[in-house]
Amino acid sequence: EKAFIRGADARHLCQVLRTAPGTALTVCDGQGYDYEARVTAISPEEVCLEVISKTLSVSEPSVSVTLYVGYPKADKLEWIVQKAVELGAAHIVPFFSRYCVAAPKKEEQKNLRYNRIAYEAAKQSGRGRIPEVGLPLSFPQLLGRLGDYDTVLFCYEAACSAVPLHSRLAGAERIAIVTGAEGGFSDEEAAAAKAVCGESVSLGPRILRCETAPIAVLSAVMALTGNLQ
Amino acid sequence: EKAFIRGADARHLCQVLRTAPGTALTVCDGQGYDYEARVTAISPEEVCLEVISKTLSVSEPSVSVTLYVGYPKADKLEWIVQKAVELGAAHIVPFFSRYCVAAPKKEEQKNLRYNRIAYEAAKQSGRGRIPEVGLPLSFPQLLGRLGDYDTVLFCYEAACSAVPLHSRLAGAERIAIVTGAEGGFSDEEAAAAKAVCGESVSLGPRILRCETAPIAVLSAVMALTGNLQ
Repeated sequence: EKAFIRGADARHLCQVLRTAPGTALTVCDGQGYDYEARVTAISPEEVCLEVISKTLSVSEPSVSVTLYVGYPKADKLEWIVQKAVELGAAHIVPFFSRYCVAAPKKEEQKNLRYNRIAYEAAKQSGRGRIPEVGLPLSFPQLLGRLGDYDTVLFCYEAACSAVPLHSRLAGAERIAIVTGAEGGFSDEEAAAAKAVCGESVSLGPRILRCETAPIAVLSAVMALTGNLQ
Repeated sequence: EKAFIRGADARHLCQVLRTAPGTALTVCDGQGYDYEARVTAISPEEVCLEVISKTLSVSEPSVSVTLYVGYPKADKLEWIVQKAVELGAAHIVPFFSRYCVAAPKKEEQKNLRYNRIAYEAAKQSGRGRIPEVGLPLSFPQLLGRLGDYDTVLFCYEAACSAVPLHSRLAGAERIAIVTGAEGGFSDEEAAAAKAVCGESVSLGPRILRCETAPIAVLSAVMALTGNLQ
């Protein structure tokens, strides 16, 4: 029945928002639950809360989408993480493939930064869960994960499948989206993916940049599953 | 039956791509037509082409979407223009509304830059037409434009409409998407928009940044109209 907020959020509530005792707050545990609460005491170090009620978060989508993105150059992954969290992705996992221009470097350290960006984006957009950004996978590791989903949208420029997105999504709850880095996928990689998860998905005749494609497909998936309304 | 490429593209073809006479090229007039052509002569100043056939561009979407975006801060509009062109927008027009943080400044000069970005993005993504970026409108000017469309998706955080996106799009060919700047819309603006174009559209319980919303809605519209496959 009691809860405490500490650290930067306590300082922000106290010194920036000047929250007074008695104020009603909705707090979120990052695990999918929201709590109606009232402030009982406040200092820059700690906000004490009396919890009034607990409800399932209303802002989580009805589908769990994992975004596997080919590791892009420069700071594009930071940007993809931020947008993907706003749009409701459950997990974001980069991977290295044959034509990646980026090479692994200080990935554990970078991963901390990506997860900080995910945390901030989750707070800002009102998510009920904080999506996790995984450490980069190799392409074989990626293939090993793709069996875990109801449907896998492996997006490939040279895909010749005529199966539209919406029919791939019918009834799916656990969805994976896979998009390539700047260099795209090799024919061998595309063939290996097809063997694991069926026909690739074409995104149409316009060529999307490697940072645009994951956000476009995630938006489309959320719209087609009724989670953008 | 003849065509010429001059300027930067001629230099690029000659000096970077080292194109030889006899090479087959597909060229685009930016007006929705593609041409199969063969190089007859080439210098850094001019590439001479013999035109073999003319076809309607296959990379233009079946719907014409105009994106009206609340003028955002910093360089976010450049980013929105680039992504919107890749995703198939026909026109992009910024507007100023009550809660815009950005203020008009050297807009004619900035407009040239936005159109250059649109041109580059159209080339890179293989568009058949070069989308135009309009000069910023006032909110009343924006309202005056919204009667011209089969459907208007006025995206408003506080929208309570239960009408899902796909039913707003049924049969629509000329579509407008309107999204706000950082500060969103005032109640008065939302009411005025509702009077002109019907119920606003809600994008769901997660709060999207002002640069994410137009790209998400455009992706959703393209997916729902069969133009992302």
